[in-house]
Amino acid sequence: MPRQNWISFLTDYGLDDVYVGVCHGVIARTAPHARIIDVCHTVPSGSVAAGARLLAKAAPHLPSGIMLAVVDPGVGTERRAVAMLAGESVLVGPDNGLLLPAAEALGGVRGAFELSTREPVSATFHGRDIFAPAAAQLALGLDPALLGPVIQAESLVRLPPPKVKVTKEAITGEVALVDSFGNLQTTVVGDASAMPVGARVMLFFGGRRRIATVGRTFADVAKGKLMLYVDSAGYLAVAVNGGSAAAKVGVGTGTEITIKR
Amino acid sequence: MPRQNWISFLTDYGLDDVYVGVCHGVIARTAPHARIIDVCHTVPSGSVAAGARLLAKAAPHLPSGIMLAVVDPGVGTERRAVAMLAGESVLVGPDNGLLLPAAEALGGVRGAFELSTREPVSATFHGRDIFAPAAAQLALGLDPALLGPVIQAESLVRLPPPKVKVTKEAITGEVALVDSFGNLQTTVVGDASAMPVGARVMLFFGGRRRIATVGRTFADVAKGKLMLYVDSAGYLAVAVNGGSAAAKVGVGTGTEITIKR
Amino acid sequence: MPRQNWISFLTDYGLDDVYVGVCHGVIARTAPHARIIDVCHTVPSGSVAAGARLLAKAAPHLPSGIMLAVVDPGVGTERRAVAMLAGESVLVGPDNGLLLPAAEALGGVRGAFELSTREPVSATFHGRDIFAPAAAQLALGLDPALLGPVIQAESLVRLPPPKVKVTKEAITGEVALVDSFGNLQTTVVGDASAMPVGARVMLFFGGRRRIATVGRTFADVAKGKLMLYVDSAGYLAVAVNGGSAAAKVGVGTGTEITIKR
Repeated sequence: MPRQNWISFLTDYGLDDVYVGVCHGVIARTAPHARIIDVCHTVPSGSVAAGARLLAKAAPHLPSGIMLAVVDPGVGTERRAVAMLAGESVLVGPDNGLLLPAAEALGGVRGAFELSTREPVSATFHGRDIFAPAAAQLALGLDPALLGPVIQAESLVRLPPPKVKVTKEAITGEVALVDSFGNLQTTVVGDASAMPVGARVMLFFGGRRRIATVGRTFADVAKGKLMLYVDSAGYLAVAVNGGSAAAKVGVGTGTEITIKR
Repeated sequence: MPRQNWISFLTDYGLDDVYVGVCHGVIARTAPHARIIDVCHTVPSGSVAAGARLLAKAAPHLPSGIMLAVVDPGVGTERRAVAMLAGESVLVGPDNGLLLPAAEALGGVRGAFELSTREPVSATFHGRDIFAPAAAQLALGLDPALLGPVIQAESLVRLPPPKVKVTKEAITGEVALVDSFGNLQTTVVGDASAMPVGARVMLFFGGRRRIATVGRTFADVAKGKLMLYVDSAGYLAVAVNGGSAAAKVGVGTGTEITIKR
Repeated sequence: MPRQNWISFLTDYGLDDVYVGVCHGVIARTAPHARIIDVCHTVPSGSVAAGARLLAKAAPHLPSGIMLAVVDPGVGTERRAVAMLAGESVLVGPDNGLLLPAAEALGGVRGAFELSTREPVSATFHGRDIFAPAAAQLALGLDPALLGPVIQAESLVRLPPPKVKVTKEAITGEVALVDSFGNLQTTVVGDASAMPVGARVMLFFGGRRRIATVGRTFADVAKGKLMLYVDSAGYLAVAVNGGSAAAKVGVGTGTEITIKR
């Protein structure tokens, strides 16, 4: 593999300790030429599904190179550490379902290798001790096949598909992510052409019923009103013009949502 | 325009999703030589006034180049997207008042151009689809005049001036920003030479009255006490030595503040 | 000193204002070749001890170069501003105890110089006006001895040692840091070889008693259960598998913790 200039980096490490900075340091010491894009480090703690979705959403817009992702509640257990080839990139992280959706967004897995551990490492910080070092080595041009044994793509751990149920009367999904604006991003892929702007829809969150209006952009509904739209990643989402849908409806990640005409 | 090495970047995207990382990716794919300074991404959601003030405060300390700012509650509506020349820099963002104070801090607008949209774009993420691509093109050396039609500087949207009222007895302004320390930054430009350290002043926040002491630096008042000072950006501000003025007084952005001798 | 490519940067500035971005700008304008690693900017406001520990924890993993750290409740007072040589690096910041543990983690102080202030500067933002400019000059290759007068290493301000008391029956320390996962990091250096995985221990937080199990990694205890372990920095720490120990126990930084077999 040629030398790679870019390492895109996503974790659930948060910003309140030095975990992210230490991984930057480890990369800088091994592969000082590499430039790092911090994609997101506030994935909800241990939420592999949220991390997988965020990485898949970002991947098509990132430069090809290394994509280093660590949301790893099974750190220190028998779960494998992997590098998988997809598109022109190599994804590095735990084999727990985190990387596969992004690999598929880049065209599918072209090969996978287990990261063999040579040195004694910590049991709780594989970002520093295994994943960042591997990413740095790959950035220097290391052949991924030299990282460790081949993994069959079919054996890679895959997350259960997101909950989506479509009937004639309704679509049911789940709130997958809530961003800083309070927009509720669902698990349901949307089709804007089938959604006439201005139409009224009923939303059910658990027991709670809300009326929303179909919009294309936030200003399509009055200030403070709920809007159903297809977001910039192609999913159905719920927003409030000039406000937070999460606060207005009082729900968060994991809540079931049903949409009815 | 010559190639530009620096893109300074400010938004209200927050850090809980991949919006900032995706814009970094878009820039890296087009203008890999460009280096990005993340000025702030936690501008209060949709607050153009707060974003404008933060950008203007930072601009004189940033390297000349591209300044990309997106606080854009009107995304997807008829509001214009603009590039404006100021000093040796080009500011890129929505034409909603966000950029003008920074342009003035850099010496005033020397020219402005509308960003014409050539391709179909999302209705809710112009940072990714319009502004970051324009910033990347400019960093490559694109002549801003090629972005789109000339805009007359007088037609640029301007925010209403911040509320400030000065009488013989009192100065009234507003809390414009609260930082992570809990310091209350007002809309009132201060003059340290007219404020004798140690003087007592009365502060009125809405109905609440507080006594504060004029200081130059935090240790000029006792631990836990309120201090009125001219902050590092030249505005009157209220702090607590070793604590949070926002928590102590129980107020936030938008609160009216009156200062009396 | 040769030109330095790396400036590692830690502060308590938070992310809600432009303080961090402005320091990046100041460095970019003086030393555009320098690359900055943001180690952490959410050190608890004014907590020199927390900042010192975080910096010391990160330092061995950072590239040699400049380490710029600002947690400076005494800004604007008589406290000195310093540059200290340690390992192949130069640490820059206030002389209040913040830098010394990191310098020791890098092999000890090899020399120290006071930063003389030549120009009028603000009384509240020495990061922008003194420390970042000094870091940028050092990155350009400035001899640290030219910054100002020599400081004797023994005269550098040293924090009191962290509270640790070991008896035959118990170890008492303090919660020094809480990370985004809610892991409680204590002041007690741990020895994993003396801690059999699966052993039961009693933890006392102030008056509250909790039972925990010794583990090596999070999955060594059942979901939701408390675990005592040696963390990746070598300290005793308390975690909850799949949850937050801080939330479960209801404690934070500064709480006394006693561990008994």
